[in-house]
Amino acid sequence: METNFCESLSIMRKIKDKEATIGVIGLGYVGVPLLLRYCQVCYKVVGFDINIQRIDLLNSGKSDIAHIPDNKIAQARKLGFEATADFSQTNNCDALILCVPTPLNLHREPDLSFIINTMNSIFPYLRKGQIISLESTTYPGTTEEELLPRIEKSGLKVGRDIFLVYSPEREDPGNSKFNTVTIPKVVGGHTSTCLEAGIALYSHAINEVIPVSSTGAAELTKLLENIHRAVNIGLVNEMKIVADKMGIDIFEVIDAASSKPFGFTPYYPGPGLGGHCIPIDPFYLTWKAREYGVHTRFIELSGEINSAMPKYVVSKLVSALNGAGKALSVSSVLVLGLAYKKNIDDIRESPSLEILSLLKEQGANIAYSDPFVLKVPKLRRYSFDMNSVEITKESLEGFDAVILLTDHDAFDYPLIGKHSKILIDTRGKYREKYMKNLTKA
Amino acid sequence: METNFCESLSIMRKIKDKEATIGVIGLGYVGVPLLLRYCQVCYKVVGFDINIQRIDLLNSGKSDIAHIPDNKIAQARKLGFEATADFSQTNNCDALILCVPTPLNLHREPDLSFIINTMNSIFPYLRKGQIISLESTTYPGTTEEELLPRIEKSGLKVGRDIFLVYSPEREDPGNSKFNTVTIPKVVGGHTSTCLEAGIALYSHAINEVIPVSSTGAAELTKLLENIHRAVNIGLVNEMKIVADKMGIDIFEVIDAASSKPFGFTPYYPGPGLGGHCIPIDPFYLTWKAREYGVHTRFIELSGEINSAMPKYVVSKLVSALNGAGKALSVSSVLVLGLAYKKNIDDIRESPSLEILSLLKEQGANIAYSDPFVLKVPKLRRYSFDMNSVEITKESLEGFDAVILLTDHDAFDYPLIGKHSKILIDTRGKYREKYMKNLTKA
Repeated sequence: METNFCESLSIMRKIKDKEATIGVIGLGYVGVPLLLRYCQVCYKVVGFDINIQRIDLLNSGKSDIAHIPDNKIAQARKLGFEATADFSQTNNCDALILCVPTPLNLHREPDLSFIINTMNSIFPYLRKGQIISLESTTYPGTTEEELLPRIEKSGLKVGRDIFLVYSPEREDPGNSKFNTVTIPKVVGGHTSTCLEAGIALYSHAINEVIPVSSTGAAELTKLLENIHRAVNIGLVNEMKIVADKMGIDIFEVIDAASSKPFGFTPYYPGPGLGGHCIPIDPFYLTWKAREYGVHTRFIELSGEINSAMPKYVVSKLVSALNGAGKALSVSSVLVLGLAYKKNIDDIRESPSLEILSLLKEQGANIAYSDPFVLKVPKLRRYSFDMNSVEITKESLEGFDAVILLTDHDAFDYPLIGKHSKILIDTRGKYREKYMKNLTKA
Repeated sequence: METNFCESLSIMRKIKDKEATIGVIGLGYVGVPLLLRYCQVCYKVVGFDINIQRIDLLNSGKSDIAHIPDNKIAQARKLGFEATADFSQTNNCDALILCVPTPLNLHREPDLSFIINTMNSIFPYLRKGQIISLESTTYPGTTEEELLPRIEKSGLKVGRDIFLVYSPEREDPGNSKFNTVTIPKVVGGHTSTCLEAGIALYSHAINEVIPVSSTGAAELTKLLENIHRAVNIGLVNEMKIVADKMGIDIFEVIDAASSKPFGFTPYYPGPGLGGHCIPIDPFYLTWKAREYGVHTRFIELSGEINSAMPKYVVSKLVSALNGAGKALSVSSVLVLGLAYKKNIDDIRESPSLEILSLLKEQGANIAYSDPFVLKVPKLRRYSFDMNSVEITKESLEGFDAVILLTDHDAFDYPLIGKHSKILIDTRGKYREKYMKNLTKA
């Protein structure tokens, strides 16, 4: 008990006195804002990654994340931040915060390889008095089933010698109202001492820390947030199809329902789910639930409906072209927006890519315009050698149809509405009842 | 065009000058608050119903609705309000607002008989210059498919001679923050003149009127609100079962997720859906969607999961009794709460009734306590001849198990927690990890 008391008191004192060194592992859109914050509040911060180019870039004071400007990295460098691929330096860190990706494999099963590899990389350098915090979104049980035994193989006792917490990242790139500092941080510890250490770690950097009773509860909290979103989007996507059949504009209905001052929260339909969270995270729970013999039918139904939306959009296009006597195979189609949501440049899991691919498969002549994505980068699943087309009266009139997929504020909507021969709107930007070229999809 | 202009201008002037007589048809929990409001803002109001006892009660200045006090009715009577079963008096009304029930029949199909019968009753007395507004929750198309042709059989032209709108009721009994006046009112008209007349009708009584482009859009708006709620409750009910298997308290997780300042709205699980809206309304859309060959899978999944919750609660009870070596058939069980939600006396569709029925079927000795329901009234589906039991140390200790179903504020939770031999909590009122008598369900 005394050792426990000592190690935990020692690390908490170090954090309080800003003598603790914070190690952030995984220098992506989660790790970088977090390390910048720790630099800002005067901790010594070391960043770890396996991507040497990224390390060199950060050490030269530059950012590879669109919404994080270079000068923030340069400033952190001046405050002593350093990035490295040398994991032996984790031994010098008092806290190690794991911000690595947790994707799905091709069978829609959790891919924990980034977490496990990180654990293996830091294992030789674990020492008494460290806090290990996992931030990656994952299924309930990951921290205790995957990290705990690996850490304790070192001979260190979690809760006495070393402290293990789970604290889900809640980054929302492009959110202008909330950021790393102002989004409350949920923390669960393996023991109550772990939880105390975790609260100490985050409460000096983040405005509000929300403790929960276990790492499992913290893991499920993050999944519930994203499941709630995936299911609500699935629901309005299904409602869109029903409303469309009945000749009703679902966007008008959602806006009217939003006038109810309680009991209703608007979610909007779209061409499908995108990004690195909503289409992926829920299936972490689906996978784990099977082990317990229970089903996650809402998640599976949402997955099914949301992933069918790109085909629905294409079917609406085919039908509109058909109305003009054109086949898709001899039509030219301009896709507006590649990013998976408005005003950002992130095209991961974007439904625009799937729609472009479906159009190409069926022989359409395709082009796209996105002010945030001037050239389609190399992708694992798709290969498009295309550059963004400028939107002008002439360019719009040159296409048989235009599909609005991402409602970037930068698009000139009146121009698009006026000069598209056929306009497929998946975002409810056009509400006019009498636009003859308009198809809602 | 001139007639149109005249009739609509005439009724709008009458409303503006408070010379219009407002007829409210259906004097239940929707019609009564609405007619009280029209009395309050100085309109002559006539209430119509087919229930003679109710009419006599209202005319004697008394209320048969728990949350509406007698003095409000008495006051309205002084202001000239009168209730009647004589539908010939509808001819004297300038506006007729239909607030009649729309239940489901035993095959879960819409039962429009109250609307149709009302229409038939008022048909002989329809005249130029009237506004007909339907407030009953129903599927998109009801107003135009069921009311419109019946009205026009009279020879009156809707939009020219007589005006037809749909404006969904949004009453929420027990809501202390919002009431009839402060809840915005969505209105759709059959024609633009109908819409204008509808806006005039409601804008003199209700703070905010939200016009939509069609009666169908207004009909779907109300359904979407309740579908959203049914689906979100279905989702957390499913999540509760998954979390329970994993040894995680879903209420703790929902509270933690609620700390996210965007993108998450808390809904809480329970013993099943109750009341006259959420378990019923969504199936109006399901039924109508079939006509268009589309499915409402989220609604059906929610229905399935929510309606299975009473059985889940009983299974948790059986399992807890089993742990104490007792069979349900030789156990006495106290059910806390009959009402379908807290702090009200409404037991319509309450899952408590189904749970009592399941317990009785399996031979348990049952009792209940509910400060709002001192005696179980006669019900269509169930017959319980029971009175509410007082909650004391002794009464609690006299039961083998206690199930908390409705979390009325009036319950003495510490007493219940201390003296129940086995306590099944379906509302997350008990969060203590080490209460040995507690089962979360």
